[in-house]
Amino acid sequence: MSKMTDVQETAGSRGPAAAGSVGIVTPRDFVCDQPFTFKSGQVLPGFTLRYETYGRLNANGDNAILICHALSGDHHCAGRHHPDDRKPGWWDNLIGPGKAVDTDRFYVICSNCLGGCVGSTGPSSINPATGRPYGIDFPFVTIHDMVRAQKMLLDHLGVQTLHTVIGGSMGGMQVLQWGILYPSFVRRMLAMATTAREGAQAIAFNEVGRQAIMQDPAWNRGDYPRDGGPRVGLAIARMMAHITYLSDASMDRKFGRRRKADAANGDAYTFDIQFEVESYLRHQGQSFINRFDANSYLYITRALDQFDLAQAYGSLETAFAPVQAETLVVGFTSDWLFPPDQNRTIALSLLRAGKRASYAELSTDLGHDSFLLESEELYALVRGFLEREHEPVVDFSI
Amino acid sequence: MSKMTDVQETAGSRGPAAAGSVGIVTPRDFVCDQPFTFKSGQVLPGFTLRYETYGRLNANGDNAILICHALSGDHHCAGRHHPDDRKPGWWDNLIGPGKAVDTDRFYVICSNCLGGCVGSTGPSSINPATGRPYGIDFPFVTIHDMVRAQKMLLDHLGVQTLHTVIGGSMGGMQVLQWGILYPSFVRRMLAMATTAREGAQAIAFNEVGRQAIMQDPAWNRGDYPRDGGPRVGLAIARMMAHITYLSDASMDRKFGRRRKADAANGDAYTFDIQFEVESYLRHQGQSFINRFDANSYLYITRALDQFDLAQAYGSLETAFAPVQAETLVVGFTSDWLFPPDQNRTIALSLLRAGKRASYAELSTDLGHDSFLLESEELYALVRGFLEREHEPVVDFSI
Repeated sequence: MSKMTDVQETAGSRGPAAAGSVGIVTPRDFVCDQPFTFKSGQVLPGFTLRYETYGRLNANGDNAILICHALSGDHHCAGRHHPDDRKPGWWDNLIGPGKAVDTDRFYVICSNCLGGCVGSTGPSSINPATGRPYGIDFPFVTIHDMVRAQKMLLDHLGVQTLHTVIGGSMGGMQVLQWGILYPSFVRRMLAMATTAREGAQAIAFNEVGRQAIMQDPAWNRGDYPRDGGPRVGLAIARMMAHITYLSDASMDRKFGRRRKADAANGDAYTFDIQFEVESYLRHQGQSFINRFDANSYLYITRALDQFDLAQAYGSLETAFAPVQAETLVVGFTSDWLFPPDQNRTIALSLLRAGKRASYAELSTDLGHDSFLLESEELYALVRGFLEREHEPVVDFSI
Repeated sequence: MSKMTDVQETAGSRGPAAAGSVGIVTPRDFVCDQPFTFKSGQVLPGFTLRYETYGRLNANGDNAILICHALSGDHHCAGRHHPDDRKPGWWDNLIGPGKAVDTDRFYVICSNCLGGCVGSTGPSSINPATGRPYGIDFPFVTIHDMVRAQKMLLDHLGVQTLHTVIGGSMGGMQVLQWGILYPSFVRRMLAMATTAREGAQAIAFNEVGRQAIMQDPAWNRGDYPRDGGPRVGLAIARMMAHITYLSDASMDRKFGRRRKADAANGDAYTFDIQFEVESYLRHQGQSFINRFDANSYLYITRALDQFDLAQAYGSLETAFAPVQAETLVVGFTSDWLFPPDQNRTIALSLLRAGKRASYAELSTDLGHDSFLLESEELYALVRGFLEREHEPVVDFSI
């Protein structure tokens, strides 16, 4: 059997002053020293997943909720690492005691994905065979691989069944893959702002981002020092991608054509920053390069490109045939990266496959990132979906 | 008076075998040696506009139609330069004998914009003061400047009044500016897929493109040899921008998730080109760098960013107050760069200012580039607008 160890032990202790928050949390590392064979056939001698948990696993091991993060997310989805952290985890508005994902009731787990760069094994990890980062010698990662690695973590944690697996965007892809790969393990799927098939436009944006990175001389075919690399290319990829996470309307409301306070004059006769939206984007690019690895960006966007359940299984209905979970899919009207139709299609295909599935569409003008933003409507949907009684599993397949 | 010369003399001779086409055309250069003061206050000692004409100016000089091109367009909008040219001018489907813009009836003029790089004076032109290209010493160009330069060309050509000024995208901005700047000269405005105000999302995409160029080490603060320069950055800017000219639906129909015929395998375990859409985009980027100057790209996108008629004149109604032209604005349902609403707003503001204006919205799924593509519906609208009787000018302003 494999040796699987928790490198750090404590997590999820809630301070008294932090009502509604999971408080100070500590990430842990799940280390698997078993060889892991990727869908591509490539093999790693072992891997690490960095993760956080909030709340407590009950005696039956059946109150666990897995949170799957999006492209640029990580395992830190609630609470703070230090009392003076400026921001909490990325889904802190949804997860915590008394919140829609109630950590007084559920045991919540979130891990940095395989191929990532925030503690989990990825291209920036050291290749034991060379003593240097894998770079582009890292195996190609798929959503399927990410889910299989997560399953090993959940087994290690003693989770017997997943009450719910939740995710938006790339996280939503993992949700669907979870229900397909481990049907008897997953009781509910909650997927938001996602797709069962990465379309041509999304592939196109990913490709421009990859080109910006790979054409940066500092990329050096993926071989660069940890604090160096294609920072310019990665910033440009992020600036562009960030536009696709927002909407025309939200950008116009947030920035419009407002000039930076220190802009030289009212008429923008400069190529330097003149508009607030330019300043915002450059900040997004700059902060991203300090927290994200360019090679991970290549690998994870390629995992997105690969994702097409209908192609992988013959049809969406065939893909969903084994699913036992009840599913809620949430789309957002202003999401033009994974538009409402692509979300609706998931629920319809599940219904056609004889499964329990619903589609809810929320009217927002906040674009793709709507799933991350405060929304009482979303919280009510999530709460209702998590709290309703679970029907005994019946196979409705046709 | 200024010396204004045609460097080349012949244009628009139609070969017998080319029915429906203006045939073989020859660009000409309008050279103005008068100082030109830009809106920024900067001055050029003179400038050149390269242009083409099709058809003949009538004795009254009142059958002229001016075509204004978009960001990456030029003066060559109909016919071919050589019999073996693979493609005709960019709006050849609209312009020619018997076509919607009928060169048997109209004298059609199109010039490469000031600041451009296809024969007109721009940052790649030689600065007589240094003997080297202007680079970023070139004055900042605005839509207003482009229109003023075009007016000098039309005066030189003997045009007494513009029957119609037509343009899409940036060309549409010029159309509106024409009607405002030269109200008694412009009898009809036909603007498509455009806006009276560059919004935050459009500025954001322009900014990412500029950053891709300016962060390319080969940009060298705009100082690069004619056959060199930031080719990588310009290609990335173009790849990204090209996505904004299409639509999710059109890209999915055209490319979907089809793999390149020579792709290594069906599972895309590579960062090289795997999907046809990637190959298409890279081709778009590569062909662009062979025909476009990176500094011109910076200047012209900045001109777009600057464009906001309401800001420039206090309100859109005030901006349009002097207009005497009748106006038709055409929006396209799938255009998400300059969406229907932004086009509708132009017509509504003209109506509020007491002008004759109509808005027509065409259902397409081809995105922003819809205005360039074959469409009998569009042709019928254009033909009807050009052929209807012109009312004597009455000032409807309120």
